[in-house]
Amino acid sequence: MVPAPSAAPTRDRLASVASDDVAALAAGAAIFGTGGGGAVYTAQLATERALRETGPVPLVSVDELTAADAVIMMSGIGAPTVGIEMLSSANQVEVLLREAEATAGRPITTLMAAEIGGSNGVAPAGWAARLGLNLLDGDGMGRAFPEATMIAMNVAGVPCDFAVMSDVVGNVVVMKTVDLSWLERHARAITVASGGLCLGAHYLLTAETARGAVIEGTVSAAVRVGRALLASSEPVTAVAHELGASVLVTGKIVDVARRTEGGFVRGSVTIAGTGADRGRLQRIEVQNENLVVLEDGQVLASVPDLITIVDAETGHAISTEMLGFGQRVSVLAWASDPLWRTPRGLELAGPAAFGYDLPYAPFEGGRR
Amino acid sequence: MVPAPSAAPTRDRLASVASDDVAALAAGAAIFGTGGGGAVYTAQLATERALRETGPVPLVSVDELTAADAVIMMSGIGAPTVGIEMLSSANQVEVLLREAEATAGRPITTLMAAEIGGSNGVAPAGWAARLGLNLLDGDGMGRAFPEATMIAMNVAGVPCDFAVMSDVVGNVVVMKTVDLSWLERHARAITVASGGLCLGAHYLLTAETARGAVIEGTVSAAVRVGRALLASSEPVTAVAHELGASVLVTGKIVDVARRTEGGFVRGSVTIAGTGADRGRLQRIEVQNENLVVLEDGQVLASVPDLITIVDAETGHAISTEMLGFGQRVSVLAWASDPLWRTPRGLELAGPAAFGYDLPYAPFEGGRR
Repeated sequence: MVPAPSAAPTRDRLASVASDDVAALAAGAAIFGTGGGGAVYTAQLATERALRETGPVPLVSVDELTAADAVIMMSGIGAPTVGIEMLSSANQVEVLLREAEATAGRPITTLMAAEIGGSNGVAPAGWAARLGLNLLDGDGMGRAFPEATMIAMNVAGVPCDFAVMSDVVGNVVVMKTVDLSWLERHARAITVASGGLCLGAHYLLTAETARGAVIEGTVSAAVRVGRALLASSEPVTAVAHELGASVLVTGKIVDVARRTEGGFVRGSVTIAGTGADRGRLQRIEVQNENLVVLEDGQVLASVPDLITIVDAETGHAISTEMLGFGQRVSVLAWASDPLWRTPRGLELAGPAAFGYDLPYAPFEGGRR
Repeated sequence: MVPAPSAAPTRDRLASVASDDVAALAAGAAIFGTGGGGAVYTAQLATERALRETGPVPLVSVDELTAADAVIMMSGIGAPTVGIEMLSSANQVEVLLREAEATAGRPITTLMAAEIGGSNGVAPAGWAARLGLNLLDGDGMGRAFPEATMIAMNVAGVPCDFAVMSDVVGNVVVMKTVDLSWLERHARAITVASGGLCLGAHYLLTAETARGAVIEGTVSAAVRVGRALLASSEPVTAVAHELGASVLVTGKIVDVARRTEGGFVRGSVTIAGTGADRGRLQRIEVQNENLVVLEDGQVLASVPDLITIVDAETGHAISTEMLGFGQRVSVLAWASDPLWRTPRGLELAGPAAFGYDLPYAPFEGGRR
């Protein structure tokens, strides 16, 4: 099998996202979530409703940005489990935008998802629509990652000048931290103090600074993957084909060792092959996201490359907190964006960044 | 004995605070700390040095403020014990002022202490001097209190539009919270995330909004009390006279029940009278500050009136964390500013606000 292409292909860009696209966007975002990023269903409902009311949100590429454009990332911050119960208030994104514009000293024209993976890949379409902004066809990760430091702009060396958070009560906080580690630390403290969930806006980008510093085309890619999943009678194959992903194993979950530690889901899941894969055993190491696939003591794939466990029948992604004994699953793996494979990318989000004493070997596709 | 006068007399206002005044300011601020507000010694050294380098800082009264003036409160936030070890960085107050001015959209001319009691009553003199600002002869409490909500402007109904915090690392946070309870909650979260100590600026006031909403004359009062203490051969008597305070008992500490809970010192201290007070036993309830004095099951004095335990020989205040078995002490009590005795003042800082099921009886002086 040939090497997998970049996760951000430039082909087949959409011009807008409409209400009818949201189910596909959500299914695709869940696949790009690699087990994390939060359940997409609540965000899907809110986004469908927003786009039904406003009409489609224009999707613009980095190439289409002009000197008049200012892009800011918007995302939910907090435990995914809280996000299922605790909704945002109606004007929370307006408050966030107003404060971001005041701090930036210029109007914002375009929203970008911090991470295309999970709920944060879905919600920005609805937020942009309600705010009358464009949505950038791209994001800061090309997947989901657990920490603010693990962002493409940090790999590219673009600094984050400020961050704004708002909570459901109406509190607003503007943070100008010395780096993204401190931003992560302060944002978590505020989120916990606010009850577990906030919305945040950070990383003000321009046409110039966005180029080469974001993962491009990922909204279109998520919709494409979701459409393939929803349309096909063999969804796992269709999704793998669309992603250029390999199916590492198909089988049954025979063990889930999972604990919640410091706001993270940690543990491992073991899958015993069935059918053509009978006799094979794979273990996947998990920290919110699926990080490493091992078989017979060998690493098959690891971060920053993407590993997603999907339902073997429906093709829908199963997030790490929903994994359970007996589920019939397929494990997909595919290559990350080249940015994450640079020395700086691996320093921020390679196996060692998650505490694994493993050398990184780029995933080039194929089954063992 | 006649009722004690207000804690904010208008007589004998100072025109400035010089390096030579700082020892008296610190001794007086410790007395107004009613056991809390943080140890004054580190702030005294830093403030003496600042004023030696800059010359005296002008002290202005509320009456002297003009339409061109903008006043902001500046204070240390965090555990007093951390404040002894963790110093502020050289430019931390500059960062704070710059950000406060940017958020306010106008230049700040004058600093005010949040609380005259303890280290936060001393440090603003040095900060104002270094920043080239005036110091307001007044503060937000007329004493020390543990929470952001317990502030004179809150009693007077003046809202807090924003707060700025800076830490020793260089991180800056601007908070626009819906009320002071949320400010307290978020500020504490940030302080803990920043290692336990931050500097903060909040409550932007003008000549108009400051009138009737701050406790006036308290910097002058603290210096006067400190001078009386340092100059007299009978310091306890001299301090009591200067404050219009009563000596409730003089004796020996026979029990200290103290625990640290949720960032607060809580407990009680028992004092057995000696000399003329032999046979008397007083218990003082403590939550960071000295809150209630009981004798024979009766309340002699309680918050918001001021209760300070002083060394019976030197007259220096003993803070709640430094109380120990065997210390020879006198207990002083005097009337709070009338603002705290209003229904709103008592709602915010009366006995019930601290969880005591006691009716408030204004302290009118005298021994039992």
